[in-house]
Amino acid sequence: MYERILELIEEKKFVLLKEELKEMRAADVAEAFDELDKKNSIILFRFLAKDAAADIFSHLSTQQRKDIVSAMHETQLNEIMEELYFDDMIDFLEEMPANFIKRILASASEEERKLINQFLKYPENSAGSLMTIEYVDLKKEMTVKQALEHIKKTGVDKETIYTCYVLNDKRKLEGLVSLRKLVLFDDDLFISEVMTEDFIATKTLDDQEEIASIFKKYDLLTLPVVDKEDRLVGIITIDDIIDVIDQETTEDFQRMAAMEPSEEEYLRSGIFSLARRRIPWLLLLMVSATFTEGIIGRFEDVLQAVAILAASIPMLMDTAGNAGSQSSTLIIRGIALGEIELEDYLKVFKRELRVSMVVGVVLGSVNFLRMLIFSSAPLNIAITVSVTLVMTVMMAKIIGGTLPIAAKKMKLDPAIMAGPMITTIVDALALIVYFTIATSMLGL
Amino acid sequence: MYERILELIEEKKFVLLKEELKEMRAADVAEAFDELDKKNSIILFRFLAKDAAADIFSHLSTQQRKDIVSAMHETQLNEIMEELYFDDMIDFLEEMPANFIKRILASASEEERKLINQFLKYPENSAGSLMTIEYVDLKKEMTVKQALEHIKKTGVDKETIYTCYVLNDKRKLEGLVSLRKLVLFDDDLFISEVMTEDFIATKTLDDQEEIASIFKKYDLLTLPVVDKEDRLVGIITIDDIIDVIDQETTEDFQRMAAMEPSEEEYLRSGIFSLARRRIPWLLLLMVSATFTEGIIGRFEDVLQAVAILAASIPMLMDTAGNAGSQSSTLIIRGIALGEIELEDYLKVFKRELRVSMVVGVVLGSVNFLRMLIFSSAPLNIAITVSVTLVMTVMMAKIIGGTLPIAAKKMKLDPAIMAGPMITTIVDALALIVYFTIATSMLGL
Repeated sequence: MYERILELIEEKKFVLLKEELKEMRAADVAEAFDELDKKNSIILFRFLAKDAAADIFSHLSTQQRKDIVSAMHETQLNEIMEELYFDDMIDFLEEMPANFIKRILASASEEERKLINQFLKYPENSAGSLMTIEYVDLKKEMTVKQALEHIKKTGVDKETIYTCYVLNDKRKLEGLVSLRKLVLFDDDLFISEVMTEDFIATKTLDDQEEIASIFKKYDLLTLPVVDKEDRLVGIITIDDIIDVIDQETTEDFQRMAAMEPSEEEYLRSGIFSLARRRIPWLLLLMVSATFTEGIIGRFEDVLQAVAILAASIPMLMDTAGNAGSQSSTLIIRGIALGEIELEDYLKVFKRELRVSMVVGVVLGSVNFLRMLIFSSAPLNIAITVSVTLVMTVMMAKIIGGTLPIAAKKMKLDPAIMAGPMITTIVDALALIVYFTIATSMLGL
Repeated sequence: MYERILELIEEKKFVLLKEELKEMRAADVAEAFDELDKKNSIILFRFLAKDAAADIFSHLSTQQRKDIVSAMHETQLNEIMEELYFDDMIDFLEEMPANFIKRILASASEEERKLINQFLKYPENSAGSLMTIEYVDLKKEMTVKQALEHIKKTGVDKETIYTCYVLNDKRKLEGLVSLRKLVLFDDDLFISEVMTEDFIATKTLDDQEEIASIFKKYDLLTLPVVDKEDRLVGIITIDDIIDVIDQETTEDFQRMAAMEPSEEEYLRSGIFSLARRRIPWLLLLMVSATFTEGIIGRFEDVLQAVAILAASIPMLMDTAGNAGSQSSTLIIRGIALGEIELEDYLKVFKRELRVSMVVGVVLGSVNFLRMLIFSSAPLNIAITVSVTLVMTVMMAKIIGGTLPIAAKKMKLDPAIMAGPMITTIVDALALIVYFTIATSMLGL
């Protein structure tokens, strides 16, 4: 789709470009910006129809927005700001420097200014930072017919009209009515008769991850956000929740791979920003791994006597790490999806105990045969390595399964207790087991 | 919420239970089933109001459904089947044994039977297996007013009425109209004037992951599914897409931790089913890791001469594994979210080269100082270990960053090229580098 846009810009066929842009979807046009340099981005943006420009603008990345805004006149900028949905505008302003926000506030009305300031104060990842103010409000005393007329008059600029909010004179939220009901029900019923009073609402400071769970559990399309006095301050729509789900999952992936999470896309991140997010955990884990140096140091005479023992260390450690990662990943994901709770601690322990026995015995047996047949290792060495393997797999799985729950219990992110951390812990334990078994088996 | 239900069942206050159940949300009642044994599940289900029962039924797990169905009379079962949305019924039937499906088909009408058979044939994870048939269809020649009347008459049983589908006499999909437009536009306009002809549709066999991307990209609430002749066969709704997103992400997590993916919840899986999914990859990786045995074996005389070299092997291998996991995780996630494409291969390579230089030099320097100051290691050993560290971190990150893209290129799932696999590959390389540097540095 976007190739056509690039072609037209390349060939400077701007009249045709303007024509064809009208027929294109915002999301497709936005993709074209990914392929353009700053100069051509600005050119392309100039040729967008006024009403499409805001929609496309809300699809762009931070850097792309900054580039385009830097080349805009004040009036153009204000036009775009006015066309943006309120939540998209706030998202955009949050990324911009303070003096830019001042410029925007200066040209806003008193009321808008207050509202913008209020929304900019909501913490990132809170309900407040997700919500928009373009909703339909109704009164209890209206009839269905009056409500539909009210929607017809005011609905054009609303982000959604599929759920309407029934407010009293103090803007307290009294009920919800879906457009579905308004269309299906009789015209002369009162809103008070058709509205749902038993609705779910969230508070401005609630965390976005919890809000996403509510959307999933109740299959919602929108969720109202109220303040302490139960007054409606905004609504959250499902499209933003899908972004939240992706964002929270990406954070989990990054934490589980021992990185500081970031919302920046990989290809848009600077080299030093990427390095900075990776170094702290790598350092911490590297220093922790030096415990293993001490352990090997303590058993140096054993190694000196039976150097062949060293050969199996990498395999033992890799397998322990892999076995632990499997368990911790399943548990971390289960916690994230709400399938595993704190009180399932014992259940998880018992399951991992049993699963790890099965897995350990299978791996240990295969390894035993392999060492005897293919590596023609001495019997006592093969036994030492295989018994260690069974025991480390069991330790790894039990630790991997329970540490994420322990982390959750301590109000830490369970995702920290993933592969890298588990591997570091289990490696040290594996070595101790290995050398202990070796010394007694080999009579050292 | 569910605690109250358990309490009432416990105390056998069934009249009260029946009353209170009426006020509860389906998703909350479904949660109570998680805490009940088979006998009490059946009791609870009996006390549900008829219209709520189907809704709650669609929230239950496979095993819970089987338990409840096993205790149902034929008539009861048929009532539930009739109340279920078509996609939920198909989901349920897919889980049931063939003779159960036969029973259901026997009591269905000729037309229903054909439809059920057709839907059961769609492969898992295809558009066909996600879609439902409860949609509103309109005709081009209707006016907005007639369309709204048509919706009022037929809309009650539809899964959604927010997007309506304009079909010709052969059921070919000609356009979409949102309920938003129908409500906001003038009553006497024709549907042909207000419908969107430039809509996005998917085919029955399209993969659910692609479909989820389309929903995300275009912020859709529903998506029509058409057959080869462009006839509408069903629609997919956003609530099912959220489940798809969670399911696909869980699959990625599991593959990245070297497991066969499964949709079963952890706490509901059997011990052997859990073990079976973990053993194959662990075995494969274990056997691959024995390459390292050969490498260490080849350098046994070096180790014998300088036994202290063995002490740093675990730290080097852990750090290499962690560094590689970081890169592969970022790239795999980037590919899954569509942020990184095949043609970004070279960009990723260059970035990882530069990032890994920064990370490697920082880690190497810290390790050098640590070994000299805290472990009081000989200078040449400290240099050997630290130089190896820089080189393995660089190798790990470049391999970790590029292998997922290579896998994608070879039509494999990039998630396979995650931590465990990267660690196994990089460990072998790390050892070779380590001993090569050691032999030349230490003049062995």
